[in-house]
Amino acid sequence: MSVSMYDVAVPTFQKQLSGLEAFLDKAAEQAAAKKIDFAVYLGSRLYPDMFNLTRQVQLATDFAKAAPARLAGVEVPGFPDVETTLPELKARIAKIQALLAAYKPEQFEGSEAKMLTLKVGGQDVTMTGREYLLHVAFPNFYFHCATAYDILRHNGIEIGKRDFVTRR
Amino acid sequence: MSVSMYDVAVPTFQKQLSGLEAFLDKAAEQAAAKKIDFAVYLGSRLYPDMFNLTRQVQLATDFAKAAPARLAGVEVPGFPDVETTLPELKARIAKIQALLAAYKPEQFEGSEAKMLTLKVGGQDVTMTGREYLLHVAFPNFYFHCATAYDILRHNGIEIGKRDFVTRR
Repeated sequence: MSVSMYDVAVPTFQKQLSGLEAFLDKAAEQAAAKKIDFAVYLGSRLYPDMFNLTRQVQLATDFAKAAPARLAGVEVPGFPDVETTLPELKARIAKIQALLAAYKPEQFEGSEAKMLTLKVGGQDVTMTGREYLLHVAFPNFYFHCATAYDILRHNGIEIGKRDFVTRR
Repeated sequence: MSVSMYDVAVPTFQKQLSGLEAFLDKAAEQAAAKKIDFAVYLGSRLYPDMFNLTRQVQLATDFAKAAPARLAGVEVPGFPDVETTLPELKARIAKIQALLAAYKPEQFEGSEAKMLTLKVGGQDVTMTGREYLLHVAFPNFYFHCATAYDILRHNGIEIGKRDFVTRR
């Protein structure tokens, strides 16, 4: 008795991306109500050498895009990091949601034991698909989603952990 | 071909808790070098109504403690939230690491389909063990680990994502 790699990977990215999009929308509504240009939030960061909100969203979506593709053995689609507005970021999320929805469970069969080589901190590291998903993709993905949330909260946006851990 | 619930749950909490402990230690060294009382960092938060660093660490460890216990069907050990220093928080992490190390894979057999009822936002919600682990425990756990990291970074501690996504 166990769980399939598809069931571990795909619904996780789907749910958390929809949570990310929902709290970005909520933030944009609050910014509009206060007549603050949302671009100010998108450019905000927690420390000068940390990434801003736009980049956090791009990076979160990158992991949601790359991890299932690598596990399924399909080419990782390249998205240029050109978004500067919330509608553009939402379009990026929507493209990745469409990719996620199109995966079939059988594409992930055996991916837990498949050896993958990837750059980690500039070095080639080889690991199993299971290790890659659980110990590289998930922590990176959640890191960027949580930091996006933290940037918004730090700037006074009223969202709560229930917006982060969504039940959708 | 698939992965066991034990392999999804236990190594995830073990690795990320050891990452959390390592970046807290690194932060404490930097604070000491600057002659800043680490209690200042432990009391820091990103916004007045967010939890401080101490509480983020307590909550991260709570999920690492509760999720495997619920899946394995053993009593969730209660730890009072009394820590006020880094050595005390490290002792809490060590207690949970000892619990995690003691689990046997067979204790998790069938847990993916086991129905669990828990309080989510004050309401009783029933879900499978798989849903609970992947869509409640993991996002909450990573949320508090990442927010702990973000609090330290925001306060000038020099750690990087490689300290968060550890290869240990």
